[in-house]
Order: sequence, then structure tokens, then C-alpha cells
Amino acid sequence: MKKNILIIPGDGIGQEVTTWGKKVLEAIADKYNHDFIFDEAIMGHTAIEAKGNPLPDETLEKAKASDAILFGAIGHAKYDNDPTAKVRPEQGLLKIRKELGLYANLRPILLFDELLDASSLKPEVLRGTDILFFRELTGDVYFGEKKRSEDNNFASDLMNYHRYEVERIARKAFDAARTRRKKLCSVDKANVLETSRLWREVVQEIAKEYPDVETEHMFIDNAAMQLIKNPQKFDVVLTANLFGDILTDEASQIAGSMGMLASASIGDSTGFFEPIHGSAHDIAGHNKANPLASILSAALLLDIAFGLQEEAKAVTNAVAEALKDGWRTGDIANASTPADKILGTKEMGEKVLA
Amino acid sequence: MKKNILIIPGDGIGQEVTTWGKKVLEAIADKYNHDFIFDEAIMGHTAIEAKGNPLPDETLEKAKASDAILFGAIGHAKYDNDPTAKVRPEQGLLKIRKELGLYANLRPILLFDELLDASSLKPEVLRGTDILFFRELTGDVYFGEKKRSEDNNFASDLMNYHRYEVERIARKAFDAARTRRKKLCSVDKANVLETSRLWREVVQEIAKEYPDVETEHMFIDNAAMQLIKNPQKFDVVLTANLFGDILTDEASQIAGSMGMLASASIGDSTGFFEPIHGSAHDIAGHNKANPLASILSAALLLDIAFGLQEEAKAVTNAVAEALKDGWRTGDIANASTPADKILGTKEMGEKVLA
Ligand SMILES: CC(C)[C@H](C(=O)O)[C@@H](O)C(=O)O
Ligand SMILES: CC(C)[C@H](C(=O)O)[C@@H](O)C(=O)O
Repeated sequence: MKKNILIIPGDGIGQEVTTWGKKVLEAIADKYNHDFIFDEAIMGHTAIEAKGNPLPDETLEKAKASDAILFGAIGHAKYDNDPTAKVRPEQGLLKIRKELGLYANLRPILLFDELLDASSLKPEVLRGTDILFFRELTGDVYFGEKKRSEDNNFASDLMNYHRYEVERIARKAFDAARTRRKKLCSVDKANVLETSRLWREVVQEIAKEYPDVETEHMFIDNAAMQLIKNPQKFDVVLTANLFGDILTDEASQIAGSMGMLASASIGDSTGFFEPIHGSAHDIAGHNKANPLASILSAALLLDIAFGLQEEAKAVTNAVAEALKDGWRTGDIANASTPADKILGTKEMGEKVLA
Repeated sequence: MKKNILIIPGDGIGQEVTTWGKKVLEAIADKYNHDFIFDEAIMGHTAIEAKGNPLPDETLEKAKASDAILFGAIGHAKYDNDPTAKVRPEQGLLKIRKELGLYANLRPILLFDELLDASSLKPEVLRGTDILFFRELTGDVYFGEKKRSEDNNFASDLMNYHRYEVERIARKAFDAARTRRKKLCSVDKANVLETSRLWREVVQEIAKEYPDVETEHMFIDNAAMQLIKNPQKFDVVLTANLFGDILTDEASQIAGSMGMLASASIGDSTGFFEPIHGSAHDIAGHNKANPLASILSAALLLDIAFGLQEEAKAVTNAVAEALKDGWRTGDIANASTPADKILGTKEMGEKVLA
């Protein structure tokens, strides 16, 4: 198979971790005789520094021309602490999601048995958990009109949804539920928000097309609680953009660490694969970041963008092997991990490659 | 001390649990020689059934005339599953919050050592946790303009904040931090939302008036994760209305159960005290609900509305005693709780009274 893959390392630890996602893709190409052609592009803080633009035209063109994109992370504390900054790294990420029509963000909460102890949750609460989030990614309060009054005393963001936006993500989520345990939980705040009422109405309608899927509606506040109280009872979870952002970060504690979670953004064209973690500038460049989320993003890329299930499985197995052999990065180590089993980014990457 | 207390049981288990909150207030009046005069009023589903209005004028008048309000719970599944319902129980709660100017919702995450094992989180993660949430309660996307297009294909809610709304809740939170561990964490999504950028700007300004308080800003997604990863590191947490709704329900798992958490809503006039749990119609009327959140709400009422610290402490101690003696309601029991230690609402209420 011949494919063009664009690597966008982005900011902070994005640089280090995508190195290993890419190396794993190269190893797969080698072993399974594929022809993966790599290109690289800039985005975020890195691109603001270089070009004054968080998403340069050249990056967007390359993205559109590629068959799949492996992305690292975005953001920098410099902008976070300056609420008046006009240009921000995150604008690059939001714009590329919109431009590529990446309306469905899949976030599988994959629990490796070896990491049951790395979580702040009790192992008996976690055991057997297997959740797949479908987060809507190009609508909601993220993209609605933003206003600031002249006198700086008032600000607003428009939360909004169109019916077709809810329909298309709901269908994707129901389709996935069908191939899994046939349970779907749709999250909203329909007791307060009009957008949530539209959301629930549409999901109820689509649910009729999937009578074999057991559908549940849950308020976001309750979901934030149930997710850590009874994670095992969730299968597919369907959410709007903002609620999905919050719940999936929370759910990362189920997998032991944000450093373990990969995501796939799909929609109208090129798929976009990235860890759910941020740029973590505090540890960037120190060979401390966990490369597994990027490596697992590469596995999602193989599976979802190229339909290479066997190759994807090989990557996930290699990660499981490394964990089974006791290797850990700092974020997934615990008090009983022997010091000589704690690895840096590079060394963990090499274990998986091996 | 002579005071007028209005009891609003509301819906579902609200009826049962406020009975015990009230009984505890009566016992305190008796013991400490206060003159508490009780009145009762309806709200929510109960009021819709009786008067077609979730907040009848009479209830609002009684509320304004009282010195403090003890509220139960609100909501009914009937409306939840009908996204097109025009009248909803929750409108009553939102309206009374707005009418009474209850802009600050205090939610203490009080951890009883006896309940360390009731949580899905590991005891070593929980131990020593003591968080006080300040949730803004009369602004945000809860009260912004709601729209639905004629053709039903589009819906929106305006998320918005005025500077003064952020200022007044921030001051209350900083004041409280000063009397505690002097740490404040303000939660927002300033990398995406304009309202969050205004929020952060204002909190940064107010923080200058409190140089002795260590201030931190955290994105909501990260906060949802950190809260269960490292709950001990939080002291005062300051949030907008929607983010606070989500985080405090999540944080209820720290205290073992939603059935343990009380809240105080304060502002311009009469204080309003309520459990953070909902109406739980599935168990309503079965003598199963945990009355402790309502009893602890009564303690908050004594403390915050009437300045009766000693009396409040007596109530909290009585709850701690009952737990120390091994008594549990179903929601805070675990596999190792002996069956004869598991009580109903009434029996648990009686243990605390004793
Ligand atoms: C960086 C930020 C804009 C982004 C989001 O909120 O979508 C991130 O948190 C994520 O989840 O991908
Ligand atoms: C019932 C609902 C409107 C309410 C809210 O969202 O504020 C509840 O969840 C709460 O937290 O008090």
C-alpha cells in the first residue's frame, strides 16, 4: 500500500512523541511491505514563532493533500496567561479541524491490564472497562460567534448546533455501538440548554434506526460522576464538543494517564490522529514524555485511515508487550515500580519498536 | 435567636430528605434555645402539578420573607425525556436563584474518614482532601438567550459573563481562601472561550488584592482530570456556572456519594441551602435516600445564614458519630458493610438525631 502521511509535531512534547509515532509507522511499512511517504509541517506556537500564523497555508495545503495526518500537541503557557493575546496556538488546531471537516473525534479508553494500578481509581472499579467516545468536533461553543464589548466589561460565546451536525456524529456513534456491546449513552444538559434539547431530540430520532442498540441519555453533571463511579457500564459515549473535551480528559484517569490515550478525528476527508494530551512544556525536551499515546495514535491511523487492522493490532500488541515486561514512563509508574523499569521517551519508544 | 426558615421539599427524594434536615434544625432549636419558625412551600414538578408553574408567586414571596431556605431536590424524568416540554421543574430552581440573587454557590467537599472506602477512588488518593467550590450561579450559558429556529433545525444558547459577575464571586472565593490553606484554583477554558478570557482577566486582577493567596488557573478539561488524580492539592476552586455544575458532581465521588454533599447558595439576600443530589425518582418513597446531605445542608444553614458555628459543628459531629458507629445508607455502604448496619432514610435520620 502506498500512502502519504503528514507529520505535524506541533508544540512542546509534541515534537518528541511524534518522533516515535513516526518510527513505529516506518517499522510497520518495513515489516508489511507498505510504502509510506512522510512529509512534515508546522502548527501552533511553533508556527506563530516561524510565520506569525498558527496554521500557515502551506500546512493546510499539505494536510489536504495527504492520506492521513499524525499530530503531536498544541499550546504554550505564554498565551494561556495572557487573556488578551490575539493570536493563539489553539486557533491552528481548531481551524484545521474545521477546514478538514473533522467532525467526529473518536477517543477509545483502552485499558491495559498492566496499568490497573497506575490509576487513582480502584482496580475493581476499572477492570474490564472499554469505552469509545464520539465527541463532536466542529460545532458547539467552540465555533460560535465570540464577542467582547468595547469597554471590556462583557464577553460572550454562542453555543449552537444544527440538526445535521448532530445527525452525522450520532450515526457514526450508533454504527460503532453496533460493532461493540450495543450500548450508547448520549450526554447533554437538556434540562437547561436549548442546544442540548435539540441534541436529545435528534439522538432520539436516530436511535429509532438502531433498535438493536440500547440508548441512554445522561446529563453531563451526572455523566462526570458515573464515569468514575461505574466506568464499566459505559460502551459508546456520544457527546457535544465541550462536554466531550471535559469527559475524555477525566476518563484518561481510567487508562492510568493522559499519556496513554490516542484519538482519531475523521469526517469529510483526511483523517487526523493525535494523543489527547497537551504540549506539557514543563517536561518538553527532557526525554520524559510518554510516547505511547502517539504510538497508539499511529495504530488508530493504520486501522481507521488505511484499514490495516493487522498492522494496527501489531502496534497495540507491541505496546502491551512493553507494559507486560514491566517498562513504564514516569506518568504510569507507581510507588512499587522498580526505578530501573522507569524509562524516558526514547527508551520506551525503543522497547515498543523492539 | 428567632428566625424564619422556609422548607421547600421539591420533587422526588427531596420530600424525604428535607424531613430530616428540618428535624435536625428543630432539635438544635430545642437544645440551644432558639426560636425557629418553619413554613413550607412547593417548587418544581410538584408545583407544576399543583399550580402549572414550577415557581408559584406564593413560594417566591415566602422565600423572600424568610431568613433562610432549606431546599430538597428538583426534577422528573417525564420532562427529561421530552425535549419539547415547555414548562420544566428546573425553571423553578433557576428562577429562584436569579430572583434571590444567589450568585455564589458554595459546595464543600467534606470527606469523613469513615467513608474513605466508599469511594471509587483509592483511599491514599483521597486522604486529607478538603475542597471548597465556589460556583457562580446566576450567569453563564444557564441564563443567556436561548433560540430555536422555526424549522427546528438550529438551536443556540448564549454563554456570557459581565465583569461584575466575575468580580463578586471571585472576591467571595478569595476571602474564603484566606481563612483556609490560602490556595485558589480558578477554572476556565481561556484557550477557546471569550467568556473564559474575561473570567481569567478579572480573576488575575482580583488576585492582586490577595497577594497572600496562591492563585492558579486551570483549563476545565485538565481540572476534570486533576480533581480525581490529585484531589488533595486543591483548596478553594472557583468556577463559572456550567463548569462548576460538572466538577462538583464529579467531586461527589471524593466524598463517597452525592448523598453526602451539601451546598449553600448566597448572594444579595436570603440564603438557600440544598443537597447537590437530584430528585432520584427511582428510589423516592422507598425510604432509601441518604438524608445526610440534607442534614449537612441544615448545618451549613446554621453556620452561614445564622452565624451559629457551635450549633453547626454539633450537627456535623452527630453525622460523624453515626458514621463512626458504622451506620450507612445504601449509597455509602460497600461490600464489607454488615447488612444490619445498612439503614433507611428514617433510621439514619434517627441515628443522627440521637
Ligand atoms: C487544545 C484545545 C483547543 C483542545 C480542545 O479543547 O479541543 C484540546 O483540549 C483537545 O481536547 O483536543
Ligand atoms: C437541576 C439543575 C438545573 C441544577 C444545575 O445544573 O444547576 C443541578 O444540577 C445543580 O447542580 O444544582
